Amino acid sequence: MRRMSVVVPGVLFGLALPAFAADPLPSWNDTAAKKTIVAFVEQVTREGTVGFVPVAERIATFDNDGTLWAEQPMYFQLLFALERVKTIAPQHPEWKDKEPFTSLLKGDVQGALAGGEPAIGQIVMSTHAGMTTAEFDQIVKNWVAGARHPVTKRLYTEMVYQPMLELLAYLRANGFKTFIVSGGGIEFMRPWTEKVYGIPPEQVVGSSVKTKFELRAEGPVLLRLPEVGFIDDKAGKPVGIQQHIGRRPIAAFGNSDGDLQMLEWTAAGAGPRLCLFVHHTDAEREFAYDRQSSVGRLDKGLDEAQAKGWTVVDMKNDWKVIYPFEKR
Amino acid sequence: MRRMSVVVPGVLFGLALPAFAADPLPSWNDTAAKKTIVAFVEQVTREGTVGFVPVAERIATFDNDGTLWAEQPMYFQLLFALERVKTIAPQHPEWKDKEPFTSLLKGDVQGALAGGEPAIGQIVMSTHAGMTTAEFDQIVKNWVAGARHPVTKRLYTEMVYQPMLELLAYLRANGFKTFIVSGGGIEFMRPWTEKVYGIPPEQVVGSSVKTKFELRAEGPVLLRLPEVGFIDDKAGKPVGIQQHIGRRPIAAFGNSDGDLQMLEWTAAGAGPRLCLFVHHTDAEREFAYDRQSSVGRLDKGLDEAQAKGWTVVDMKNDWKVIYPFEKR
Repeated sequence: MRRMSVVVPGVLFGLALPAFAADPLPSWNDTAAKKTIVAFVEQVTREGTVGFVPVAERIATFDNDGTLWAEQPMYFQLLFALERVKTIAPQHPEWKDKEPFTSLLKGDVQGALAGGEPAIGQIVMSTHAGMTTAEFDQIVKNWVAGARHPVTKRLYTEMVYQPMLELLAYLRANGFKTFIVSGGGIEFMRPWTEKVYGIPPEQVVGSSVKTKFELRAEGPVLLRLPEVGFIDDKAGKPVGIQQHIGRRPIAAFGNSDGDLQMLEWTAAGAGPRLCLFVHHTDAEREFAYDRQSSVGRLDKGLDEAQAKGWTVVDMKNDWKVIYPFEKR
Repeated sequence: MRRMSVVVPGVLFGLALPAFAADPLPSWNDTAAKKTIVAFVEQVTREGTVGFVPVAERIATFDNDGTLWAEQPMYFQLLFALERVKTIAPQHPEWKDKEPFTSLLKGDVQGALAGGEPAIGQIVMSTHAGMTTAEFDQIVKNWVAGARHPVTKRLYTEMVYQPMLELLAYLRANGFKTFIVSGGGIEFMRPWTEKVYGIPPEQVVGSSVKTKFELRAEGPVLLRLPEVGFIDDKAGKPVGIQQHIGRRPIAAFGNSDGDLQMLEWTAAGAGPRLCLFVHHTDAEREFAYDRQSSVGRLDKGLDEAQAKGWTVVDMKNDWKVIYPFEKR
């Protein structure tokens, strides 16, 4: 008996139709964005036609922050780091007189972050390195299970976009392999992406610190070093895609200029392509920001999307609900 | 309709037995090695028992050189590089007076390689960098389609081990995801591993050069730089596994001291584990080498395998055939 590989139900039953014959995207309004997505999936799954793409090549890549979950008032991973500084401060008496920690421990986040990238780098490295990969995994799992968003008071994993969850499931039902390609930390995402998005650890691409194999008395460990390994952002995204996936995606989803090169790389392949930006236009249900935002800026990307005819999702008008909890 | 995931046929039909009820490993003699493999697969697939491992966690990693295909008289990738030097020499008039190229172009391979690692580094970088990823992919595809082994005169992709092909298929039929974790170049393997081993590009981990995203007039490219990105060997293997897969394997297969840390990392996890070395003991049908070999040395690994009770395959006595072409 041979291995059964991932199958498209439509193909399984000898049909040329994509899966989810009912409404695959119930939280999407019937606007152009949804029509473009459905038309693309129908095109690449219709065997015997020029647009058909074999299952093995149906690679879809998704940014995470601002594309699959929210990213305001700041990246959730930074909120994790800020909280973590407080948690481990007792082990760091020297932080009493060392910026950005002094400000942070006084509750002055603005003051701490005023130090810009070097300050953020210190906060991230002091909270993301110096432990084993197994220890960090557990730290993230504990945080994600209980930490709450400062504005909505929801768990962070509740602040994922219901329409994007449907899109992930729809693509997978049609033979796509879905990947995350995020500027966020690869080991910050892996502990929860399978449960929340259905994306297993081996399909998560992200930024990373260097790690080092060590044989300790209790056994081998991988130690997380306070040294940047890879930055999976902007021009780094196609690099990360090639390194981890080794094939060019046929569909890519982002929300900011940090995703622009991923979409360019995706668009440059032969055959049908779907390049999509989520545009944060809904100040009431979520947040509204684009060209001027320091978090998730969408400026050049918006221009290029318009010039090249990529899909831009208007969250306010294209999505019936934002978060899964709105449905309940 | 929901996504159908990879299913174990045994599970599909409500049985607790592993797939391949007949003989899953026909090219293996009925010795201890085969029995250990089958017992392990039966253990991890038997639902409701303490040794059961969910499908998502059935990760198996395979070294390539000397584990899935041969590696004598030298690594095939080095033979590729040596051949490539000759091919592109006309574009490099300066090589006439530059070692190790001068020796190589005179046909003096020994003399060229006498320069040790720096010489090999120059040969590798001059043939593996300076082009786009798409160009390198095509170069490898062309080579692998026609180049022949200096001793057997076979295509390199014919010099894969039939018993290991059966093992790959057997594991996959039982819900395993099979990965290559090799010291060889990730982009040297990806162009042919899917066809030869059934392992898709996104499941190949290897050494790499750095790459750079560039927007050219004809579109975006990834340029291969003459700079080491990652060395996926020895203590680098657990690092590569964590970076690419993000979970610890439950089974690992190697043949040299370069695989030792991968096996240590695998063995250190909780639950059933299978750690296996292929021992090259068959001078007649393949090659015989271990503790003293400069290629694929198996010395510390052999000691540790004995001390820890890992499986050591004796190619001469455990395998009925070595290469697929012997069966014809």
